[in-house]
Amino acid sequence: MSFSIRKRKVAAAAKAAGVDGLLVTHLPDVRYLSGFTGSNAALVLAGERAVLFTDGRYTAQAKAEAAGTRVVIAKKPVLPAACEWIEAAGVKRCGFDAANTTVAALESMRKAVSGKVRRGLFAPVGSLITRLREVKDADEIVRLRAAANLGCGLFDRMLELLRPGLTEIEAAAELEHAARLSGAEAMSFETIVASGERSALPHGRASKAKLPKQGFVTMDFGVVLDGYMSDMTRTVHFGKALEGERDVYDAVLEAQEAAVAAVAPGVTTGDVDEAARSVLRRAGLDKYFTHSTGHGVGLEIHEGPKLAAKQTQALEPGMVITIEPGVYMPGRFGVRIEDMVLVTEAGGEILTPSVKAWIEL
Amino acid sequence: MSFSIRKRKVAAAAKAAGVDGLLVTHLPDVRYLSGFTGSNAALVLAGERAVLFTDGRYTAQAKAEAAGTRVVIAKKPVLPAACEWIEAAGVKRCGFDAANTTVAALESMRKAVSGKVRRGLFAPVGSLITRLREVKDADEIVRLRAAANLGCGLFDRMLELLRPGLTEIEAAAELEHAARLSGAEAMSFETIVASGERSALPHGRASKAKLPKQGFVTMDFGVVLDGYMSDMTRTVHFGKALEGERDVYDAVLEAQEAAVAAVAPGVTTGDVDEAARSVLRRAGLDKYFTHSTGHGVGLEIHEGPKLAAKQTQALEPGMVITIEPGVYMPGRFGVRIEDMVLVTEAGGEILTPSVKAWIEL
Repeated sequence: MSFSIRKRKVAAAAKAAGVDGLLVTHLPDVRYLSGFTGSNAALVLAGERAVLFTDGRYTAQAKAEAAGTRVVIAKKPVLPAACEWIEAAGVKRCGFDAANTTVAALESMRKAVSGKVRRGLFAPVGSLITRLREVKDADEIVRLRAAANLGCGLFDRMLELLRPGLTEIEAAAELEHAARLSGAEAMSFETIVASGERSALPHGRASKAKLPKQGFVTMDFGVVLDGYMSDMTRTVHFGKALEGERDVYDAVLEAQEAAVAAVAPGVTTGDVDEAARSVLRRAGLDKYFTHSTGHGVGLEIHEGPKLAAKQTQALEPGMVITIEPGVYMPGRFGVRIEDMVLVTEAGGEILTPSVKAWIEL
Repeated sequence: MSFSIRKRKVAAAAKAAGVDGLLVTHLPDVRYLSGFTGSNAALVLAGERAVLFTDGRYTAQAKAEAAGTRVVIAKKPVLPAACEWIEAAGVKRCGFDAANTTVAALESMRKAVSGKVRRGLFAPVGSLITRLREVKDADEIVRLRAAANLGCGLFDRMLELLRPGLTEIEAAAELEHAARLSGAEAMSFETIVASGERSALPHGRASKAKLPKQGFVTMDFGVVLDGYMSDMTRTVHFGKALEGERDVYDAVLEAQEAAVAAVAPGVTTGDVDEAARSVLRRAGLDKYFTHSTGHGVGLEIHEGPKLAAKQTQALEPGMVITIEPGVYMPGRFGVRIEDMVLVTEAGGEILTPSVKAWIEL
């Protein structure tokens, strides 16, 4: 694991931001830099030093997981414990991530240090670490590939299992059971199985509704494997397509493939979004595409970059993003197709190569 | 659903805190007050008015779920959209929850309103809503009972299924599959199945380790049903107990039952904690009880009140808490036993009445 390389990159980013220390409390960031997976932690980086604060529940686990980092089992809450260490270590200006620090946490950070250093000690420096995490290193890509592969296997299994009359929850249960038996630590979000009219709900969590004899079933699901998340969506059809259904499916598929084809280093995320949106606009369906085209995925299910209209961020090799346009016709039906895509030097590589052609079950 | 009663209570609390509006962004709070379950929302309360801001993905869902609340599908991010409404509505002083508002969010709230009202418009008022949520109303208790019952059924099922050689992940897979088929929307946290030496990890997520022929298996799990969470732990034993194992089990059980017996309105959470801790102290095991005794549970898996040493908060009828002492002997084994307990006028009622006596499989 390349924790030392990651810590060095973060240290450089911190220095560039004008701080000599960094207080890291966002748990995925803590894991990224130390390997620790517990639910309560604060990590301090100061020059060459890195200290992980956690509590007594994690004594054994922290030492095992964060082997390259000094571990302190704090008697008090980890945040003041970390701040006292920061003051004692003589840190002059300590950066924190305003997007992942609550107003109350900042207040308790300030209270934990003495009056003479309080003023100006803590400085918001943006989301340095989550920004670095947008570009995955080789270790991470291996894990994301494995998670995505596991997801594809689940979709194959669902094609065997899905049948009219099964409830959406039962379908989700089979999918999640298969995920677990394939080694998944958890699902990366609440499984979406949305059938019939419910397919028009972009976030239709599996319900007690029964899969219909005729109509769409959208499945949006992901697993967690070694901490890394997968995310994919496929929409299949039961019975013969009614008027319009096939046209909408084909338009969404064309939009999805156009966006995947647009992926390349230097291309803006807004351009990738537009590649999908313009296909749907030509088909007169863009008003039914009510969300953004995608997002980064890694230790969290929703990370940067954000692929949405007018975004100007450029794609970089090593980013792993979703491409997931959809069309939702309230009261009728909806279609979404989603892949995970790795940005490579050459363009985009689909990590979830499950079939996307029209499937009639 | 008692949304109007809840909103009235919150309005009274807001008034007492000296604000004429409240900006609610913590999603469980939004759900509590409006019924909306989507992943992106801001709710504004101002006098009699309540407005829910969300995005286009949730057009249909928000109208269905938040039927008693005005819904605005915002074109821009929900936070500035809500703040512009707050200014236009003439709110003079708008409370927010500092514990659930990031420093960056507060900055964007301030930027969303004009300079002439910015100064002093937003005021931290504490966690008014999460505090109210600590005491469950009748609707919530019905749901928590149902979730807890579902959990108990899962434990019975596990007693039939558990056998040496099954991996922890396979055991978790069976448990989660049974949960889904019983109607659970999701698990309330990552299922813990920690066997053999791993039972000494208080938070030992299910791993590839095989259940041993001899030793403990701790299962800590919960489901989400109608949005409400269950949480329970049982520790069972494979084969004959080795020296010390049975003594530790009995001590943890005695500690757990002592803490449950201590539950009553007016008793402090610190006293409940001490009831468990003192039993383990007498057994010379308190240094292995490395966490607090419990926590509130409801729409979130960890809510107030916190049951820990020296806490002075008094229990109130309607609170639903966990009581979960444990003993963890690194490299050897661990035992934890956990119930959900409803605080009643008369004392405490166990919501998870699964057997706690020593079970040898």
